[in-house]
Amino acid sequence: MSSIHRSPHRRFNPLSGEWLLVSPQRTQRPWQGQKEAEKSGIQASYDPDCYLCPGNTRAGGIRNPRYTETYSFINDFSALLPETGEEKAVEQELFQAVPERGICRVICFSPRHDLTVARMDHGEIRNIVDLWVREYRDLSRVDYISYVQIFENRGEIMGCSNPHPHGQIWSSEHIPELPSKETERQEEYFRMHRSPMLLDYLETELKEQERIVCTNRDFAVLVPYWATWPYETMILPRRQVTSIDELSGPERDNLADAVGRLTVKYDNLFKTSFPYSMGIHGAPCDTGSYPGWQMHLHYFPPLLRSATIRKFMVGYELLATPQRDITPEQAAAILRELPETHYLEERS
Amino acid sequence: MSSIHRSPHRRFNPLSGEWLLVSPQRTQRPWQGQKEAEKSGIQASYDPDCYLCPGNTRAGGIRNPRYTETYSFINDFSALLPETGEEKAVEQELFQAVPERGICRVICFSPRHDLTVARMDHGEIRNIVDLWVREYRDLSRVDYISYVQIFENRGEIMGCSNPHPHGQIWSSEHIPELPSKETERQEEYFRMHRSPMLLDYLETELKEQERIVCTNRDFAVLVPYWATWPYETMILPRRQVTSIDELSGPERDNLADAVGRLTVKYDNLFKTSFPYSMGIHGAPCDTGSYPGWQMHLHYFPPLLRSATIRKFMVGYELLATPQRDITPEQAAAILRELPETHYLEERS
Ligand SMILES: O=P(O)(O)O[C@H]1O[C@H](CO)[C@@H](O)[C@H](O)[C@H]1O
Ligand SMILES: O=P(O)(O)O[C@H]1O[C@H](CO)[C@@H](O)[C@H](O)[C@H]1O
Repeated sequence: MSSIHRSPHRRFNPLSGEWLLVSPQRTQRPWQGQKEAEKSGIQASYDPDCYLCPGNTRAGGIRNPRYTETYSFINDFSALLPETGEEKAVEQELFQAVPERGICRVICFSPRHDLTVARMDHGEIRNIVDLWVREYRDLSRVDYISYVQIFENRGEIMGCSNPHPHGQIWSSEHIPELPSKETERQEEYFRMHRSPMLLDYLETELKEQERIVCTNRDFAVLVPYWATWPYETMILPRRQVTSIDELSGPERDNLADAVGRLTVKYDNLFKTSFPYSMGIHGAPCDTGSYPGWQMHLHYFPPLLRSATIRKFMVGYELLATPQRDITPEQAAAILRELPETHYLEERS
Repeated sequence: MSSIHRSPHRRFNPLSGEWLLVSPQRTQRPWQGQKEAEKSGIQASYDPDCYLCPGNTRAGGIRNPRYTETYSFINDFSALLPETGEEKAVEQELFQAVPERGICRVICFSPRHDLTVARMDHGEIRNIVDLWVREYRDLSRVDYISYVQIFENRGEIMGCSNPHPHGQIWSSEHIPELPSKETERQEEYFRMHRSPMLLDYLETELKEQERIVCTNRDFAVLVPYWATWPYETMILPRRQVTSIDELSGPERDNLADAVGRLTVKYDNLFKTSFPYSMGIHGAPCDTGSYPGWQMHLHYFPPLLRSATIRKFMVGYELLATPQRDITPEQAAAILRELPETHYLEERS
């Protein structure tokens, strides 16, 4: 390990173009602040009050079909709508507002109310990957949509209001902030080097192994050199893939494998149903061409030391620069060593 | 109100150069997710176990003086240290790490364990303003320090681990991310217009009144047009002030007045001790010259609908673009109407 990694330093995120602060000496700090409630996690496989369970009625009286694999629908409380009316943009220099159209969908990962991705078998996770691809295809073909953001908020601590395994998709007319920075940075790198930034990056990581969590033939799971959340990871394809719909059948199997192994490790880390926000980034689906893009999955988990002690991204982080305590190298070593069998299965 | 403010739209933050998503139609959404624990808020005025109370012993055996107004000291678990050793920077294009020196301080706002800023009288808040100025002066004169970030994490939900009224200062060798963007944007605006961006902005806001919360002779409190947190506000001086140490005595009184009135309104909003992260931004203290800078205070409060229902900045916000439900105009109208006498005082 480079010795700079042992004392306070800044690292650069080449994907966003921003710096973060790493304070490795701070891990010994005692914690007297807020502790998260520990959830028992025991759920029934069907909940008559859940608006995502098969056959149940949702807001506005719509009834879900008795689906047996996955199911998706337009979000009943969409943040974006396909029509915005005839409103004019506000175009003063210091007051700029632009109408934004979009489509928001909810994607149910399983009919079973009591499962999480970490507790699913390979076939069930492969169904989710296929759902992501299908939804991506449909939404990216809508003519006014430039970006399709697939994500999952997992756990109450991440603002998820229903334990039924599900994700969301917000697709929009304009490219959102982070994907737009990632586009700029990757395309600029490509212009300079004639090769995709994240493939060059992965090559070095595979050589060094220090931040690799696990791999299979088509994907690598790693803790980015510039990770800000304590156990943040990224899943990267090992060949260039600009968006998720380019994955072949065997690659989708291997993405399901990577997602399954990572989420089991996460649950095993603090022997809890591990919370996170996850999202899939890929090239915009507007008319541009993006030879520098490499699709990837980001996992941003909030827990720091245990099932009840989280990292707060607050004062300094909101006002100045994101800050982390344990180093990405330490986090990767811990995740790498964790077993790939779920702790609840080991017991039985 | 411009009619675009009624349907989904994006707004531009000229201070950071980033867009946010506004979804006014989403306020009706029911909430079945996590509720924050309500704190009783009753504390003793002295707590023998508090490491910030006068006369008590801190980590490492240091004893606080029996201070009677404010008190500050080097953070016992500093994220930044004055010495980083002899480590060399890592300078590959995709792996960049740079040693970072700095000084972290804890600033106690009062000897009384049971007070919050909202419950302090004018003289007590004026003491805090003087403390900010003193600390800013001392730290900004350290030769290797380029930026002095004063902030307060208020409430357990904002990662504050001790209710004793206090803030922090992290001062660093390099300019952190957000202040550096604000520097770039304000100086660029100044080059174009020969006047400070935030003074031009304030002029329009004072004319329109729609987002103004309250004012006094020297300061205005407003909800920025580009606010992302539900009840986010900014305190702005009405003449150009590049950093807090330039404030005159009467101006410091009026800053105390603005801070006091705003925090009382915040507590009154949901009849709770209102959580927030607050921070003071001003020009860097390196050798540069910053004719475009206007100092300001940001308040980022997490609550959305009640003392127990917060806004989660999660999936879409972390991966794509910050999103808000109630509009800045609605938030400002609500804050403006709230009384300036604390709800607990009214009762007694
Ligand atoms: O230093 P504290 O108050 O213990 O820590 C708090 O504020 C810091 C600065 O915003 C954050 O990095 C920590 O995550 C938070 O818990
Ligand atoms: O749509 P949901 O799951 O109710 O809402 C959750 O995810 C959204 C997208 O990240 C956030 O804007 C909300 O704050 C959060 O509570």
